[in-house]
Amino acid sequence: MTDQKNYHLQCTGPAMETVQRHSGAQDITLFGSCFCPFVQRVWIALEYLGIPYKYYEVDPYKKPADLLEVSPKGLVPGLKLHKYTPPRGLNESTVILEYFEDLAASSTKRSLLPTDPYARALVRLQCDHISRSIVPAFYRYLQAQEEGAQIEFGKEFRTSIESLVELFERAEREIVQGGGASGVGEQRALGAGLGLWLDNGDLSLSDVMVGPWIFRACNVLKHYRGFELPTGPKFGAWIDRLFKHPAFKATCSTDELYLDSYERYAQNRPNTSQVANAINSGKPLP
Amino acid sequence: MTDQKNYHLQCTGPAMETVQRHSGAQDITLFGSCFCPFVQRVWIALEYLGIPYKYYEVDPYKKPADLLEVSPKGLVPGLKLHKYTPPRGLNESTVILEYFEDLAASSTKRSLLPTDPYARALVRLQCDHISRSIVPAFYRYLQAQEEGAQIEFGKEFRTSIESLVELFERAEREIVQGGGASGVGEQRALGAGLGLWLDNGDLSLSDVMVGPWIFRACNVLKHYRGFELPTGPKFGAWIDRLFKHPAFKATCSTDELYLDSYERYAQNRPNTSQVANAINSGKPLP
Repeated sequence: MTDQKNYHLQCTGPAMETVQRHSGAQDITLFGSCFCPFVQRVWIALEYLGIPYKYYEVDPYKKPADLLEVSPKGLVPGLKLHKYTPPRGLNESTVILEYFEDLAASSTKRSLLPTDPYARALVRLQCDHISRSIVPAFYRYLQAQEEGAQIEFGKEFRTSIESLVELFERAEREIVQGGGASGVGEQRALGAGLGLWLDNGDLSLSDVMVGPWIFRACNVLKHYRGFELPTGPKFGAWIDRLFKHPAFKATCSTDELYLDSYERYAQNRPNTSQVANAINSGKPLP
Repeated sequence: MTDQKNYHLQCTGPAMETVQRHSGAQDITLFGSCFCPFVQRVWIALEYLGIPYKYYEVDPYKKPADLLEVSPKGLVPGLKLHKYTPPRGLNESTVILEYFEDLAASSTKRSLLPTDPYARALVRLQCDHISRSIVPAFYRYLQAQEEGAQIEFGKEFRTSIESLVELFERAEREIVQGGGASGVGEQRALGAGLGLWLDNGDLSLSDVMVGPWIFRACNVLKHYRGFELPTGPKFGAWIDRLFKHPAFKATCSTDELYLDSYERYAQNRPNTSQVANAINSGKPLP
């Protein structure tokens, strides 16, 4: 047992620099764990939307009492909102992302969503697919121990990513091309908020929601399962824009942190996490 | 086999009257099936938000080609949006609900959500719990055939509803009571959008998202599983306000329609639906 790797307790690389820049008191404290992709989601959004925050590292396997105060299930991410007396809490990464969108709408004026209702709906379709298909497929694949199951779940994960690409292509086709834009400027306006899939796009809610798992597919799944992402110039360009985006990069640690921290998932050790237990028992994710 | 009940192909009771009032062409066509709770969600929202629509009944077991055009998996609800050339489609009940919220914000000015970002987040926490816990628990319970499983999943469904009540109570405590309102008028303003749980509340996104399953708990689960909802005056008053709400009532058929249509779920017949198959295989709902 002594040669088993252990999970990390603090960020490394660019993420550590970001933590150090966000160590002072602010209205919002983000309770995070360095390797957690659900945390990375909301962290990217904070960076992108320009909302002031303090990053506070917690050990998800030894839940401190102050985490349970803001997140009843003891799951990260959690927020502590100090502008209220007494301070209030908020949990669930997708709910927190919408909360940041609402906050930013009245302050920083940046947004992870288009303004047109139908374009917003197409991005939300992508988000729905990510939550219900890509995320659970990632864990089924990583936790699978038998070769047959690894092959089956690896295919499932890949197909799920390909379906997301179809939803990206649909949004581009219906909004940018179907919008009847006559020039590059108009195309850019129509595509605003549709995400990094577009050559001239910026981060969307769906990029933020899926990015952490795509990143872990490139280090954790590659290392433990030999997984390779789909190829093709358009897909490669999207990954490149995503991984190089300042808000995304600022939340990434070095590969070693992820490889060490996810070994327990790859070995499907007992009590790895509430997410891992849910996958093992066929229940929805907590 | 001849004494098996079959699913219905058209609404009855108040829902049928609503269908008749919405049979003329409009910018939005709702593709619905009379017994489907996911359809009822978006239908209640259309009624409440005052968005013009045409209701179009489809047989979910014999998916017509025009349904597949607007909803790629062939699932209801689907929308056909005629204001675009060519017309566009939209699917997924939760995505459609957000789309209607966005549409109403710029037209009818009604809303299923509070305006304050934190109050919105508390309602979204309720919605997240409904999607990930209450809805799958309903189907596990209804499809369970063994007595032991029925007892286990019945408890799980009840606990899941009790957890929603805790989230309702939290929103009331943090927003209305914690907001420091000094009178009834202020309390009403703080509670706006928090839903029918509040004595003076109106429909919220979470009421709309859970209502169809609470309704089916009172007819389908009561009939086939002997289920009884939690008791208590506050809970009873919420159910009463929900079931008597004009937008809710307008989308309800008579009990017989649900009892007949859900017999195949209660018997867990093969190929009852994509939802039923997902529950049987331990996969996330489609």
